Order: sequence, then C-alpha cells, then structure tokens
Amino acid sequence: MQELLGDDLSVVVNTGDDVEHLGVHVSPDPDLVTYWLAGEIDEERGWGIAGDSFTVFERLVALGAPDWFGLSDRDLATCLRRRERLEAGETHTAIQAEIARALGVAAAVLPMSDEAVRTHVRTDRGWLGLQEYLVREHAKPAVLEVELAGIEDARPSPDALSAIEAADAIVIGPSNPVISIGPILAVPGMRQAIAAAAAPVVAVSPYVGGRILKGPTDEFMRSAGREASTRGVAAAYEGLADGLVVDAGDPGPAPDAPSVRSVSTLMDDADARREVAAAVLDYARELG
Amino acid sequence: MQELLGDDLSVVVNTGDDVEHLGVHVSPDPDLVTYWLAGEIDEERGWGIAGDSFTVFERLVALGAPDWFGLSDRDLATCLRRRERLEAGETHTAIQAEIARALGVAAAVLPMSDEAVRTHVRTDRGWLGLQEYLVREHAKPAVLEVELAGIEDARPSPDALSAIEAADAIVIGPSNPVISIGPILAVPGMRQAIAAAAAPVVAVSPYVGGRILKGPTDEFMRSAGREASTRGVAAAYEGLADGLVVDAGDPGPAPDAPSVRSVSTLMDDADARREVAAAVLDYARELG
Repeated sequence: MQELLGDDLSVVVNTGDDVEHLGVHVSPDPDLVTYWLAGEIDEERGWGIAGDSFTVFERLVALGAPDWFGLSDRDLATCLRRRERLEAGETHTAIQAEIARALGVAAAVLPMSDEAVRTHVRTDRGWLGLQEYLVREHAKPAVLEVELAGIEDARPSPDALSAIEAADAIVIGPSNPVISIGPILAVPGMRQAIAAAAAPVVAVSPYVGGRILKGPTDEFMRSAGREASTRGVAAAYEGLADGLVVDAGDPGPAPDAPSVRSVSTLMDDADARREVAAAVLDYARELG
Repeated sequence: MQELLGDDLSVVVNTGDDVEHLGVHVSPDPDLVTYWLAGEIDEERGWGIAGDSFTVFERLVALGAPDWFGLSDRDLATCLRRRERLEAGETHTAIQAEIARALGVAAAVLPMSDEAVRTHVRTDRGWLGLQEYLVREHAKPAVLEVELAGIEDARPSPDALSAIEAADAIVIGPSNPVISIGPILAVPGMRQAIAAAAAPVVAVSPYVGGRILKGPTDEFMRSAGREASTRGVAAAYEGLADGLVVDAGDPGPAPDAPSVRSVSTLMDDADARREVAAAVLDYARELG
C-alpha cells in the first residue's frame, strides 16, 4: 500500500459538506482526506488535526462568535487560506492541490467539482445545513430528505475526470452512500465518467457485521428509500460497481451485485486499514 | 488615573492604518488601544498581545501566504471576527465596542469614522500601503508624500462626535502628528468638532529631549513640510490646541502655542505614564 500514498493515488472528494463559517471556508471532506494522507489526522476523532490548539476559536467565541463548530488553529488556517484563495479567483482544485503540496502529500486530492454544491437536510426541525445537522444538532433530528443545492450547475472537475479516465482501479470508499458518496456521484456527468472508465469499479460497503460503526448512515439510507444494509448499498451503486466488498461478518441475504467479495472490513487500526485496502486492490485486479 | 480606565474615557482612534491581509481585517490602532486598556498589550513590542502564539500565522505561511505581516493567534481572531462583522453590515464603531466589551474594557474605543480611509505613502520606491511601508519595508524608503484615500467621503463617527462634544478635556496624544493623529484630524468635520467643543484641548508633543524615541515621525513631519521638532508639532495643531505639553528636556526655541506646559514626558513604565497623564489632565483643568 505504501506506494499508493504517492502520486499513484487520486482521491475524488465531496465538497457538498463545505460551509462558510467563522469567517473561513471549511471543506471537511477534502481536508479530512488531506490530513489523513499528510499523517496529521486526529485518528481518535477521525477528523481534524492531532494535537492542535484551539486558541483562535476560543477567542472568537469570547468575541461573540457561535461556539457549535470548533476549528483547531492549523485547521482554521487551512480554511482561512482557502477562503482567501477562492476570493482571489482560484478554483477548489488548485487550492486543494496547493494545500496538499504544502503538507507534503504526493497523492492528488481532487474536489468533485469546482462549482459550489451544498448538502441540505430536511428534518423534523426544518431544513438544516449538513454541518448544522451533524454538529450543532448532533444528528438527532429525523432525516426526511436530502437536497444538493447547486448540483444541476456543477460539473466534474477536469482533474477528477482525467483521474477517472486514467485509473487502473476505481474504489468507492465505505462512506455514507447518501451524503458522502452521493453528492460526488450526483454531479452531472460523474456517474457516466465512472461507468465509461476502463478500470474496474469496486465499492466497499460501510456495514460491518450488519452495522454502521460511526455516523447516521442508516437514517440517510432510509431517507433515500434504501434498505439500511449492504443490500441497500449494492442498490445505491447499481449499474456502477463491478464488484462489492462486504464484511465477512455481514448477515445475509447476500446483496445483489455483479460480483461480491467478502473480507473482514473492520478498520480499527493502520494494519487493518492496509489489509482492507490490499484486499480491495487485489479484488479490482481480478475484476480488471 | 485609575478611574479614567472606566467609562469616563473615550479614545478616538485612527482607522487609516487598517489593512485587509491574510484574509482578515487588521485595524492596528483601534486594537492597540483596546489591548492596552484590556491589559493584554505586549508592552515590550508596544503592539500585539503579550505571550500570544503564532500557530495560525505559521501555518498560513506554510500554505503559501505572505510572511511579512505576522499576526498572533488572539490578534488574528479579533481581525477575523472584525472582517465577518463588517461583511455582515456592522459598523467599525459597533464592532470595536463589541471587542472592547468582550475584553472587559469599560472605556469607549471610537474609530474616527465608519467609512474606510487608507493611508498610502509615496516613497522613493513608489506608493506603499502604510503597513507595507512600516512593516514590510521597515520604514526604510524615503517618504515623499502621504495620501489618505477615501478621506473626502469619510465623516466623523456619531459616537466620536458625541464624545468630543461631551468631553471635559480633549487630549491629543503624543503620536505621530502626520500618520497617526493626522488622519483623525483630516476626517471632514473632525477639526471643527474639536474646535467647537467646550473642553480645553491639550496636545502632547512626541518629542522627548528633542528626539523621537520610536518610529519614523521625523520623516513624516518633513514630508508634510513641518519642522521635525516640538515647534513642528505646535504648527500641526495650530488653531486647535489650547495648550501644548512639551518635554522638560526639549531644546529651545520654545514652540509657538497659546500655552505651553513643560514636564518630563518620558513614559518608560506604568508609573511614568500615569504621571504624564495626571499632569496633562491637571493642565487641561487649569486651561478649562
């Protein structure tokens, strides 16, 4: 796997989670991936920068800023720099490349689109921005509907399209199929580009032993009219995935997919993550 | 003096030094005064917040931001909050009041104007923003001219006018008469308001023993066609100051002013600052 952390790896990331907050442009998914690849991630939380201070955030709150969305200092710097570069007319793609390069990340972290897309959630407490729902409301309101504002006018970024076209293997990660993978696939032209790519497409189910280990995936699956299970995941990627990796501990019945590979997908440390990644790539090679 | 740190004190501050930089709105003079009154000032440097970290600034520079204008974390938070509140339509006056209140400052820190004024300096290396001249170029280029962009459209803030009208004493501090006091007095209507006020006006010369202890005051005095001396200061405040406080160690000849009070104006510690302030207020009382 080590070589995949180099420039052989391209990660297409979701900008639907983006939010302008505290005077900066927060781009949670691109930064999360960048921090993982840079070795900066706070592994325990699964987001943010390990060991970072919150000096600016605490001062902002003292000055009257809202306190529900904390940003640590280095993370805030990334988001402040992003806002400035966006206002100077730079694209998300160019800015994320600058950030990755500055942090020593050789892999390409590619925003799905340079146009703005925003995920909104209709809940029993009304419409909420995704971060408001997840962070401020702790994912407690009932999810009724998801809207991707701006999606009709978005186009896949040229770099994302090139990476898809040139790929040896395309992996759809074990993220929330509705709000994490969904916005990427909803960018007009993205599904077609993936379907047209020469590379095999392998999707990894986020269900481990039939359960989601983190986050409100079940709620979002149900709001999208899908079964909250690996079968529902298979349905979400129907016509797109050539193969589906499912957890060996997943209860039946087997999902409906062109091909299924069963492995232990629990990723609770770096070794386990490496093993799952290797199994996924082996599987893609077999399918290719 | 202690009571003057309460709500009896209003300080009209210069916003001509403001600069949008690193994605935030820096307002050096208002913040400097606020940090002094809040007890946060870095007394050694004479600006910024004592003991503050530079985590965000260092990260911004690592991400490619310019490195010549450092902002410590809490200072940057103030400036980030200011930018957001300005963009939300708040006035400089309201924002500075929020900042002062949050930091426990009872005195009123009053921006000279809610309209934007920017001090530009023509030098032998071309036009420079004031911070570019002072910080990036270390005040080394020769000063040829000062321009206050936007001054024609600026008006004194209503709060500044009220404070001037209601004052028992008006003190013009021992700052640079051209680039620190000058922009305040140049706001159309400000000089008239001070001249019309019932209170005595006392100006304090920045010359100590005939010399400027800090900053390029001499260069700016000469660029404005004034003598680089207390006599030049007296000329700058002609028609405005009822009395001039000069340093006891100042060489002659005596400045041309309606009244002159000679005291030791060297303020190298808190006691000395307190003594000068007390002497200035006593003098104002006598003149009143």
